[in-house]
Amino acid sequence: MPAAKSTFPLNAWYAAAYDVEIVRKLMPRTICNQKIVMFRKSDGSVAALEDACWHRLLPLSMGRLENDEVTCGYHGLVYNAQGRCTHMPSQETLNPSACVRSYPVVEKHRFVWVWPGDPAKADPALVPDMHWNDDAKWAGDGKLITVQCDYRLVIDNLMDLTHETFVHGSSIGQRAVAEAPFVATHGDRSASVTRWMENINAPPFWAAQIKHARGYEGPVDRWQIIRFEAPCTVNIDVGVAQTGTGAIPPGGNQGDAKLSNRSKGVNGYVLNTITPETDGSCHYFWAFARNYCLGEQRMTHQLREGVATIFREDELILEAQQRAMDEHPDHQFYNLNIDAGSMWARRLIDGLVAKEKPAQQVIPLRAAA
Amino acid sequence: MPAAKSTFPLNAWYAAAYDVEIVRKLMPRTICNQKIVMFRKSDGSVAALEDACWHRLLPLSMGRLENDEVTCGYHGLVYNAQGRCTHMPSQETLNPSACVRSYPVVEKHRFVWVWPGDPAKADPALVPDMHWNDDAKWAGDGKLITVQCDYRLVIDNLMDLTHETFVHGSSIGQRAVAEAPFVATHGDRSASVTRWMENINAPPFWAAQIKHARGYEGPVDRWQIIRFEAPCTVNIDVGVAQTGTGAIPPGGNQGDAKLSNRSKGVNGYVLNTITPETDGSCHYFWAFARNYCLGEQRMTHQLREGVATIFREDELILEAQQRAMDEHPDHQFYNLNIDAGSMWARRLIDGLVAKEKPAQQVIPLRAAA
Amino acid sequence: MPAAKSTFPLNAWYAAAYDVEIVRKLMPRTICNQKIVMFRKSDGSVAALEDACWHRLLPLSMGRLENDEVTCGYHGLVYNAQGRCTHMPSQETLNPSACVRSYPVVEKHRFVWVWPGDPAKADPALVPDMHWNDDAKWAGDGKLITVQCDYRLVIDNLMDLTHETFVHGSSIGQRAVAEAPFVATHGDRSASVTRWMENINAPPFWAAQIKHARGYEGPVDRWQIIRFEAPCTVNIDVGVAQTGTGAIPPGGNQGDAKLSNRSKGVNGYVLNTITPETDGSCHYFWAFARNYCLGEQRMTHQLREGVATIFREDELILEAQQRAMDEHPDHQFYNLNIDAGSMWARRLIDGLVAKEKPAQQVIPLRAAA
Repeated sequence: MPAAKSTFPLNAWYAAAYDVEIVRKLMPRTICNQKIVMFRKSDGSVAALEDACWHRLLPLSMGRLENDEVTCGYHGLVYNAQGRCTHMPSQETLNPSACVRSYPVVEKHRFVWVWPGDPAKADPALVPDMHWNDDAKWAGDGKLITVQCDYRLVIDNLMDLTHETFVHGSSIGQRAVAEAPFVATHGDRSASVTRWMENINAPPFWAAQIKHARGYEGPVDRWQIIRFEAPCTVNIDVGVAQTGTGAIPPGGNQGDAKLSNRSKGVNGYVLNTITPETDGSCHYFWAFARNYCLGEQRMTHQLREGVATIFREDELILEAQQRAMDEHPDHQFYNLNIDAGSMWARRLIDGLVAKEKPAQQVIPLRAAA
Repeated sequence: MPAAKSTFPLNAWYAAAYDVEIVRKLMPRTICNQKIVMFRKSDGSVAALEDACWHRLLPLSMGRLENDEVTCGYHGLVYNAQGRCTHMPSQETLNPSACVRSYPVVEKHRFVWVWPGDPAKADPALVPDMHWNDDAKWAGDGKLITVQCDYRLVIDNLMDLTHETFVHGSSIGQRAVAEAPFVATHGDRSASVTRWMENINAPPFWAAQIKHARGYEGPVDRWQIIRFEAPCTVNIDVGVAQTGTGAIPPGGNQGDAKLSNRSKGVNGYVLNTITPETDGSCHYFWAFARNYCLGEQRMTHQLREGVATIFREDELILEAQQRAMDEHPDHQFYNLNIDAGSMWARRLIDGLVAKEKPAQQVIPLRAAA
Repeated sequence: MPAAKSTFPLNAWYAAAYDVEIVRKLMPRTICNQKIVMFRKSDGSVAALEDACWHRLLPLSMGRLENDEVTCGYHGLVYNAQGRCTHMPSQETLNPSACVRSYPVVEKHRFVWVWPGDPAKADPALVPDMHWNDDAKWAGDGKLITVQCDYRLVIDNLMDLTHETFVHGSSIGQRAVAEAPFVATHGDRSASVTRWMENINAPPFWAAQIKHARGYEGPVDRWQIIRFEAPCTVNIDVGVAQTGTGAIPPGGNQGDAKLSNRSKGVNGYVLNTITPETDGSCHYFWAFARNYCLGEQRMTHQLREGVATIFREDELILEAQQRAMDEHPDHQFYNLNIDAGSMWARRLIDGLVAKEKPAQQVIPLRAAA
C-alpha cells in the first residue's frame, strides 16, 4: 500500500459508493490509495475491508461472500466482517496476526462513507450535510464519474463558476456569470462564494426550468451560493426567480441569503463530494436536487441525464489540465480574483493535511489482533 | 540487455519452445530477460542467437533466413548459426568483434531447451526428466501460455494443490484436497508433496475419466504426488482408482508410492515447466499425459482443451496476485502449513541463484570472437 | 515544459506543419518537447503560441479562435497572436506577467517553420532550401508521418541508402546499391554522400518511371546524391538514365555532378525534414518531386501513395531499432564503411547542440512582458 501523500487528509469521511451500489456482493473500490472491498451484510449494514488477503495478497473481491464472511478465491482463508481470519485450509490453529484491516463505515444521505484514517477518530457526526439528496422536500438523483485528476482540481472547478461561461455555454453558462461580482467568505472547515445576478436573461437550462415549473418566460434574478466543506464536499444552492420578486436579499452579495424570497422561482442544489482514488484520480459523486415538480419522475430522469452532459464537459477540461500540470511540474501558478473561493478551500485542505503529518506514523495499517 | 536479476539462475536449461514451434523461420522469444531468435537448421537441429544485430541492434528476427544464415533486415549483415558475422555491405574486411551471442540448445521430451548462462556448463544431462511427454506408453498434449507474473508464483501455485478447491471447484477441486493431510520432502535439487485421499467421491473431472476408461462409478482413492525439480519444473503424478484396490500404498503418505497398485484406476501426469520471460512474466509450458485410452485422439484433443480451461483459472489468479504484490512491495508474507512444498522449492531456487552471484561477472554476454 | 535534451539544437527552423494543415482553427503540435498551438491569422500569416494557458495550463488549443485572438476554454482568458493576455474574467487590471510564449514563424517551400530557440536569432534566411517542393519545374507531393524514434535515427537511415537493398527490395532496392562504391564529403553545416551505379538493370520503381516517361526499357545508369543540412534536413537527388548517355559525369563519384547529362533519364528529389517531437519521437515530413510528366496529376497522386508504402517500411525498422536501443542503453556501437555519411551528420548535429549548452540558460521560456 503506497504511503498516503500530502494531498488529502486520512481522517475524514469519504463517499465510497452510492447506497444502491452496495448489495450482497463483493465490491472493490480504491479510496485514498487504499484498495477496499465492500459488501452489504445480512442485517443491511455495510462492511468495508482491506482488499488483499493476508496470506498471498489476492484481492478478496475475487473470492466469495457467504453468510457475512469472505472466502479468499485462492487458498480459501475465511474472514469475518471485522476482518479477522476465521478459517485456514489444512490447519486447526490460526495465526494470531491473520486479519485484514476493517474500515469504519456510515451510510447517510444516500452515500456509503468510509473513514481511511485512525478508526478511533471516526465520529459519524462529521459526515458532511448532504440531506437534500435524501429529503422528501427535494427530488433528484445523481451519478458517479471517476476522473483522472487530483481531486483538488474538481474543488477548484466548483469554487469558481466563471468557467460555466466558457465550458458550459450551451446550458448554464452566460456572460453574466463571468462578469457579476461575488463575495468569498470562510470559516474553520468551510468556505463560501456568493454571486447574485440581477435582472438578466436566464441561460437555456434555467429558462426551461422556470418556464416548465412556473410558466414564466421573462427576465430573472439568478443566484449561485457555493459552500465548501473540507476536505472535499461542495454543495451549491442555485436557481432563478422572476426578477424583482425578492430573490436577491437586501444588500445583495453582502446581504443575508436567508432573507431571499424564492416563491416566484425555481431552486436546485448541486451536491458534490469528491473522493481521492489515487493521487492522480478521483471518484466524483454528484447529484442534482430540486424543490419543484417533485412528483415528475420523468423530470428527475431527464435532469440527471442532462446534468451528466454538463459534468462530462468538466471531465474533459479537468483531465487535460491534469496532464498539462504533470508536464509542467515546476509551473508557478498565479491566482486571479475569481480564484478567491478555491484559495480558501485549498488553505483549509492544506491545514487538515498538515495537522495529520506527525500523527500518520501511528495510524495502524491493519486492525490490531 | 538488462542484468539478470536474482530471481532465477542463468545456468539452467529453460524450455524455450514446443518442438513444433521451431521451423525454417526466424522465431523470436524472450528468455530470462534475453531476446533470442531461434530457427531450425537444414540438418533439423535448432539454433538460438541473440536477437539484436551487432551493428544497429535491429532484431535479427525481422530479417531473413537463408541456408542456415540470418541476414539482418536493415543493412544486410549476415550471421551464421554460430552467431559469427560472415558478410557486411560495401566492405571486404569484417570487424573481428562482429558477432552475436549464440546459445546452447537441446531438443528433448518435445521441448527446445536453451541455456542462458555460461555455455561451458551446459550439460545436456541436466535437462529435466519430462519423458511422459514423449513416450509411447503415455498419450497427451499441451500448450504454452505466457503469464504476467514472476515464474515463482506459478511454482508456488503448483506446489500446493489446496487451491484446486477454491480455484478449480467445477473440475478437479474438492474439499478433500484442502483437508487431507500431506507430506512434504526434499532433496538437493528436488522437493515433493504427497497427498493420498482415501475413499472419496471423485471430483467431476476424474469421475468422467474413470467412468469412460474403466466403466467405474463408485468411490475412489485419489492421489497427487507433486515433484519439483529446480529451478522451474514440476511434474505431478495424479489419478484415482476404485477405492480399496491398492492404489494407496501401505503407510499412506509415509508409504512407498512405488507400491501403489493402480490397475483399477486412471493415471495422469501434469507436466509443467515455467521459463522466466522477464522479471515479471513467464512462459508456462504445460502438458497432460495419460496412460489409458491411448489410441483415442478425440480424448487427447478434449483433455488438452479441458485442461487449458483449468490453467486459465490459474492465470487470472496469478496475474492478480502479481499486481497486488507490486502494489505492496514491502509486504511481510507469512507461510501456512500448506506452503511447506513451495517453501522448499523457493529455498532450492534461492540456493541456485546465490551460487551464481559471484560468477555472473565473468559470464560472457557475447560469444568470444 | 521538460528541459530540452542535448539531442537537438533549439536555435533552428523546424518544419511544424504542411502549409495546408494550418487554417482558421487552433492546431496543436509538439515540437522539440514544446507544446505549440498554431493558427492562420486573417491576414494569411501563421501564429504559433505556447499551448498552455498562463492561468491554469489548460491547452489553448481546447479553446476558441476569434478575430486572431485565442480564448481559453476554461476561464476565458484571451490572448492575442503575440501571446499577450488581453482579457481576464471579473477583473479590470491584467497581471503584467500574463502571457504565453510566442514563436517565430516562416512559411516557405510548402512548410510552416517554427524556431523553438532564442527568437532574436531566428533569421528567415536560415530556412533550409527545399524549393523543389514549390517550383513550377518540378511536380510532387508528400506526407507527414510521426515516428516513435529519436529523429537522428531517421537521419542515419537517409544518409546510408544501402538499406534500400534489404528494406525496400520490392521497389527501389537492388544489390548494386549495397555494393557500389560511394563518396562522402562534408562542409560546415552540410554533408553529402554520392553514389553512381553504371550500366545496371533498373529496380522495379525506376524501371516503371523511365519506361512511362521516356519509353525506355534497357540498362541504366543510376545515381543517388544525398545532401544533409544540419540539423535535420536531407534532400536526395535520385534517378536513372539510359546507360552511357552522360548521366555519370567524367570521374564518376569524384566528378562534378553539375556535368551530369540527364536528358535521356528521369530525375526526382526525395525531400525530407525531420522535426523532433519529443526525445523519443519525431515528425517526419517527406515529399517526392519529379521533373518529368509534370502535368500528370494521376502520377503525382500515385507516386505519393507508392512512396508512402516505402516510408512505411522504414517506419517499422526505425521503431524496432529505437525499442532495441532503449533495451540496450549501454550498447557500444561500431561504425561500418557505409556509416560515413551519418557519422558526419551526427558530428554536425553534436556541434550545434554543444554550441548551445551555455547559452541555453538565458533563452527566455516566455516572451518578455
